[in-house]
Amino acid sequence: MASSTVDLDDMRHSLAHVLAHAVKDLFEDVKFGVGPVIKDGFYYDFDMPKAISEDDLKIIEKQMRKIISKQFEFTSEKLSIDKAKEREKNNNQPYKLELVNDLEAKGTTAANAEKGAGVSEASYYTVGEFTDLCRGGHVKNIKDTGAFKLVRVSGAYWRGDENNPQMQRIYGVAFATKDELDTYLKQQEEAKLRDHRKLGQELDLFVHSELVGSGLPLFTGRGTWLRELLGAYSQQLRKERGFERIWTPHMTKSALYKVSGHWDKFGEELFLVKSQETSDELVLKPMNCPHHAQIYASRARSYRDLPVRFMENTTDYRDEKSGELNGIERVRALTQDDSHVFCSEDQIEEEVSSLIEAAQSMYEVLGMPLQSINLSFRDDGEGYLGEPALWEKSQSTLEKLAKKNKLNYKIDPGEAAFYGPKIDFIASDAIGRTTQVATVQLDFVQPERFGLAYVAEDGAKQTPVAIHCALLGSIERFLSVYIEHTNGHFPFWLAPEQVRILTINDSVSDYAHEVQNTLKETVLMKPLKYNEVRSSLDERNESLGKKIREARGERIPMLIIIGPRDMNNREVSIRIGDEETTTKLTELSEFIKSQ
Amino acid sequence: MASSTVDLDDMRHSLAHVLAHAVKDLFEDVKFGVGPVIKDGFYYDFDMPKAISEDDLKIIEKQMRKIISKQFEFTSEKLSIDKAKEREKNNNQPYKLELVNDLEAKGTTAANAEKGAGVSEASYYTVGEFTDLCRGGHVKNIKDTGAFKLVRVSGAYWRGDENNPQMQRIYGVAFATKDELDTYLKQQEEAKLRDHRKLGQELDLFVHSELVGSGLPLFTGRGTWLRELLGAYSQQLRKERGFERIWTPHMTKSALYKVSGHWDKFGEELFLVKSQETSDELVLKPMNCPHHAQIYASRARSYRDLPVRFMENTTDYRDEKSGELNGIERVRALTQDDSHVFCSEDQIEEEVSSLIEAAQSMYEVLGMPLQSINLSFRDDGEGYLGEPALWEKSQSTLEKLAKKNKLNYKIDPGEAAFYGPKIDFIASDAIGRTTQVATVQLDFVQPERFGLAYVAEDGAKQTPVAIHCALLGSIERFLSVYIEHTNGHFPFWLAPEQVRILTINDSVSDYAHEVQNTLKETVLMKPLKYNEVRSSLDERNESLGKKIREARGERIPMLIIIGPRDMNNREVSIRIGDEETTTKLTELSEFIKSQ
Repeated sequence: MASSTVDLDDMRHSLAHVLAHAVKDLFEDVKFGVGPVIKDGFYYDFDMPKAISEDDLKIIEKQMRKIISKQFEFTSEKLSIDKAKEREKNNNQPYKLELVNDLEAKGTTAANAEKGAGVSEASYYTVGEFTDLCRGGHVKNIKDTGAFKLVRVSGAYWRGDENNPQMQRIYGVAFATKDELDTYLKQQEEAKLRDHRKLGQELDLFVHSELVGSGLPLFTGRGTWLRELLGAYSQQLRKERGFERIWTPHMTKSALYKVSGHWDKFGEELFLVKSQETSDELVLKPMNCPHHAQIYASRARSYRDLPVRFMENTTDYRDEKSGELNGIERVRALTQDDSHVFCSEDQIEEEVSSLIEAAQSMYEVLGMPLQSINLSFRDDGEGYLGEPALWEKSQSTLEKLAKKNKLNYKIDPGEAAFYGPKIDFIASDAIGRTTQVATVQLDFVQPERFGLAYVAEDGAKQTPVAIHCALLGSIERFLSVYIEHTNGHFPFWLAPEQVRILTINDSVSDYAHEVQNTLKETVLMKPLKYNEVRSSLDERNESLGKKIREARGERIPMLIIIGPRDMNNREVSIRIGDEETTTKLTELSEFIKSQ
Repeated sequence: MASSTVDLDDMRHSLAHVLAHAVKDLFEDVKFGVGPVIKDGFYYDFDMPKAISEDDLKIIEKQMRKIISKQFEFTSEKLSIDKAKEREKNNNQPYKLELVNDLEAKGTTAANAEKGAGVSEASYYTVGEFTDLCRGGHVKNIKDTGAFKLVRVSGAYWRGDENNPQMQRIYGVAFATKDELDTYLKQQEEAKLRDHRKLGQELDLFVHSELVGSGLPLFTGRGTWLRELLGAYSQQLRKERGFERIWTPHMTKSALYKVSGHWDKFGEELFLVKSQETSDELVLKPMNCPHHAQIYASRARSYRDLPVRFMENTTDYRDEKSGELNGIERVRALTQDDSHVFCSEDQIEEEVSSLIEAAQSMYEVLGMPLQSINLSFRDDGEGYLGEPALWEKSQSTLEKLAKKNKLNYKIDPGEAAFYGPKIDFIASDAIGRTTQVATVQLDFVQPERFGLAYVAEDGAKQTPVAIHCALLGSIERFLSVYIEHTNGHFPFWLAPEQVRILTINDSVSDYAHEVQNTLKETVLMKPLKYNEVRSSLDERNESLGKKIREARGERIPMLIIIGPRDMNNREVSIRIGDEETTTKLTELSEFIKSQ
């Protein structure tokens, strides 16, 4: 493991050892669980009599730094399974003993797993005065562990099973440099303030109900505006590119997925539906391509009809694990702005280019420009359907298009869909996090499996290619990202309430209503067409200061303040953020349309 | 049963006896099933060696008239169960024997059923030379059976169970007068031509897929325009009345319906959903009120916030029996334009009036004016929730509003929802059939069960009233009615393709594109706002005659025919039905907007 550049995972995993070492140094009667690497850091599970507090974390962290300062090297040894068992028994480590037993039964070291079940040796690694059962992956010297911080402790059942004892899990984050760690911690601090679950509640965008269930959010009036306006804009972009809306039900016989090939791949994610009236095996749709293929298949198509372009904003259902549900970011009911193009092979380039352009427009308008793309290609793994030659051809087509469109791309082997390669678009948010947004996918497999066809110019029967595309992807997931990106300050065209009129006193009430009527007749035409201005009137008998504070708290982008002078001059005073301006009532509509 | 006016059901049931009599006269070895009254007529099931043909129907009908001409009276007798069994055994009538056995076990005569299970007698009715096990309900003299006609024969499993023998079912229709029968038969003839299943396919509006399943139609581009435009117009009407859109998922824990009270009433109609990740008991939503109540409940409400008005066009799932599915009229996935108002008791009148007005506007615009309403009230039956005093109050409120709005109404006892009384709006279609369309329902029960509340002006906690309303009801069902009502000739604003441009020859191609660009910029503002004109251009090298025939077959409401003279004059020739007119290109948009 002598390497000049330190691997981040090795670094984080080494820190887990150091964490366990420190806990062993500081506390009595500790039983050790596991200490894996996770996103941004590591954790270690401990079963011990003492409940670890926030203050303890500081003490543990200090002890870790002391251990690291000694610049120990990792050393390893191999024990026979019997010796390993004996060691863990003697050390009174029941969890480790269980792991050794498993090792014997299943062969979980990478090297041995390949040979088949059952291994005869267990490997141990020692750093300083702490030796741990471990399959390896460490830095050479413990000094090379970059910058880290312990961030929290929480309860966790041994092996995630609630029938097992509950342990204490200490989480740490770690990066190669202190700068990176500081940036990350600052980002986390900022992300916490913008947490979409918190803002969703504060801005009254969506709610959960115990009676409806987990992962099934309900959207209030304000949240529904966001959903609908985003969906409508995605539709507008696609309509301009020749897509027509279709509608498909949320349920289907499982037969549909057995033909498409999804059944084997996604069987576990499916919600099964039981009818009391038919013996059909029914499921909720987790994706829409097979339904769209059925509409394509419902009539004869000729080359003159191609490309056939379908779009549908529709809700899919996926049986996500309870532990993975998170606000509206990971839900069981997700609404996709889904699209499918059925075209001939020589139309692929133009269609994909058009969709790339649509994605770029979308994220430009949303103030979240796309920074790069991943070309998700296949690897040598199993589960990919279709001819290897077709895969090569379609992967090279996508790479060619990425170059042609001057996209900043990297190739991600093993990330393809089972039916073909994808372009996954990556955007970065206001606090520097990146996230996958739009996707364009080639599919040479499903059209054939569904027997889709068109009559070519020469009269021959041909199979079309399918192109899958979603600009927003899951609207719920996108919204979770976008709420945090904007911190709830949505762009003017998208804000659920765009303008609030605040009266200074009762004398201006009639005029305030006149202003509101002007707003009611104002319609934005860009970026989304026919977007009627959404306004409200606050004429409560409260101080102007209070009214302004409330409106700002609700993130209303434009305030119109009406006092007697405004009324007398037939003007309005407008506040957008800290900017103040005055305009004639007769010019208000035009002013708003120019936002 | 001596009555001066003959009951239509008695008449139809008597004809079933005559039908069986005639079949017995004409054929060998007939085993008799049952002969009930159905909508518009009657049927009788027979198990016999001879397959009945259309020609046989004529012969049977002739024999029936011969029997009727003898003016027999119905006579009845009662046999002990044992004697009845003996009779059926001797007559070699296994189905009748089974019915007698059931009678003994379950007590199916109305009179005996009340006393409890098991009866000791079976009643028989004789007309002419045919005696039948029957619980009664006949005309006195067989001559009083009005006008009838046998219409068809089809296969039917004994007692609807596919494990039982298949019998032959002969259907007849019957009315009090020959005129009524003729009107009905003509209507049926016309309805067959307009059958929405036939037109749905011809006009490419929706399709079914064997892989997706029964009762789960998929809507093509054209059908989706109809769905979306109707739904959008319903939303526009409600938005004008202060409704805000919300969004709820299609799935929920069954706990929601246990609280609402739907579980006991609708448990059998529910699709049950099985998760592989959670042990929650999940179902698909068959209605939306409980979801909407959850959004109301998600925050504190004050009297100042009322009425709170929610609307959602959303798809519900109901486990309809396979045999009852019919095109898009009866489906398992139905999309409702659903609305719920939560208000104080003294706001009911204004809110209901506003919804009555919305329903009237809707059907006026659709060219299908509402002709009457049914006030669906409770009867003395069981299953109604809530205080009788509240029922009385709300029923009288609805009747008062019906009078105030000068609605043609009748009271329908026993047709209320379990939570309150309803107004059901009745429209009649172009061929004289009536159908229930919009509904407005009062609900004093669910708000209480969900613990909904608002703070009244005096600070007291109060329970709001809920008002349920759907203007279209099930959009699929409404469309099935509307396709037949219009015979596919949708009003201009609603037609999936509104205008088709037909070129006479290639020389006008550029000008035809110019005309199409004008259409693309034309936006209708009524009845639905922001309704962009949907047009296509047929510049194929085909004869104008063929192009016109095709466009008419597809029910395109407006054709624009472009020849060299039109081009030279910068005019367009417009055909709407048989009307022809010419207008300047510069005036085309205005002409279309005035349609």
